[in-house]
Amino acid sequence: MNLAEYFPMWDQLTGDECAALERATTSRRAPRGTMLRSGAADCVGLILVRSGQLRAYMLSGEGREVTLYRLFERDICLFSASCMMASIQFEITVEAEKDSELYVIPADTYKKAMERSAALANYTNEVMAQRFSEVMWLIEQIMWKSMDRRLADFLLSESALEGGDSLRLTHERIANHMGTAREVVTRMLRYFQSEGVVELTRGEIRLTDRKKLGMIAG
Amino acid sequence: MNLAEYFPMWDQLTGDECAALERATTSRRAPRGTMLRSGAADCVGLILVRSGQLRAYMLSGEGREVTLYRLFERDICLFSASCMMASIQFEITVEAEKDSELYVIPADTYKKAMERSAALANYTNEVMAQRFSEVMWLIEQIMWKSMDRRLADFLLSESALEGGDSLRLTHERIANHMGTAREVVTRMLRYFQSEGVVELTRGEIRLTDRKKLGMIAG
Repeated sequence: MNLAEYFPMWDQLTGDECAALERATTSRRAPRGTMLRSGAADCVGLILVRSGQLRAYMLSGEGREVTLYRLFERDICLFSASCMMASIQFEITVEAEKDSELYVIPADTYKKAMERSAALANYTNEVMAQRFSEVMWLIEQIMWKSMDRRLADFLLSESALEGGDSLRLTHERIANHMGTAREVVTRMLRYFQSEGVVELTRGEIRLTDRKKLGMIAG
Repeated sequence: MNLAEYFPMWDQLTGDECAALERATTSRRAPRGTMLRSGAADCVGLILVRSGQLRAYMLSGEGREVTLYRLFERDICLFSASCMMASIQFEITVEAEKDSELYVIPADTYKKAMERSAALANYTNEVMAQRFSEVMWLIEQIMWKSMDRRLADFLLSESALEGGDSLRLTHERIANHMGTAREVVTRMLRYFQSEGVVELTRGEIRLTDRKKLGMIAG
């Protein structure tokens, strides 16, 4: 276990502080689809992503979703330990989007360490500011970017994540990412197909003209 | 100057730390309409609201606005000191919405204090988490609440803020708050008027049926 990989200020902690954090940390495997956190009551602790991919999203009362951000290797999931901060008054759901290997630091252990170490508290501030920035980017997208630009952008970034032109994604799943209805996604994808930028086959979306897609994304 | 009123953990700072913060803090008056921060380059420092009201909003490339949150007496404006955190990668504009009296703590002084004091760093975390919660609430509103419910909600909370049934607000200004077009607001207000919940006269919106407005707001 090498927690220093996740905390660049690790050498500013005392030996005792490092040992306490390492002693409390557990390893966990989360197969694709595992719900790691659902709702505020679920305070599993700070999650460190060793490998795989997590998705943090918001869920409406009617079961609609919108992706807030994703977490990749070496990322820290702060809001899975939201009980350590009184001011976090919102619900985030976190799921493993790919098979993932994780470290989990219990919230109370982490909170105690933050109370002792200004370096750790400030680093936690930076992690929160990163997530805040991602959520602010999302607001800009929702408020001021039309659905065609958002979808083009989404397809390009998915393709970058998956490393290929072929995406195995249902329209339902895309709608959940973008916080819209499946019908809206289907309609837009058919328009993209008619423009020659994607090819739709059962369970697959193939990007056929990245350049044009990039132009739509703006 | 009594900074302890703004920082509940003030007694956990050393005498030197308190003195350094107090020495660097300046007073400032901001008449209604004053732009306190526009864009990331503008790092005025941490703003403490002694009296009045500030509005933090996001501005699109095309000049459209959406209110993110408001700050009242005793509130702390963190993002006006965004240069002290590398991970803050977004633009927030802050204006005085009412005549306001402020304290300003320079960003570098505050940053140094946070680096020394875990208590101050953790409190700053809580302040950021509060703003985060407000922004998450906004996303919920935008994503899942229809415009009539949002407008009804907005009118009721404005009326609570102003302490009366008469609101002196232009349709343009409401549109900027809600991140929509003026025409959308005008159309919706006319609908509200036809339903008997508001009365529109030049430059004024009078709430005539709060109960029904509350039902629309849900």
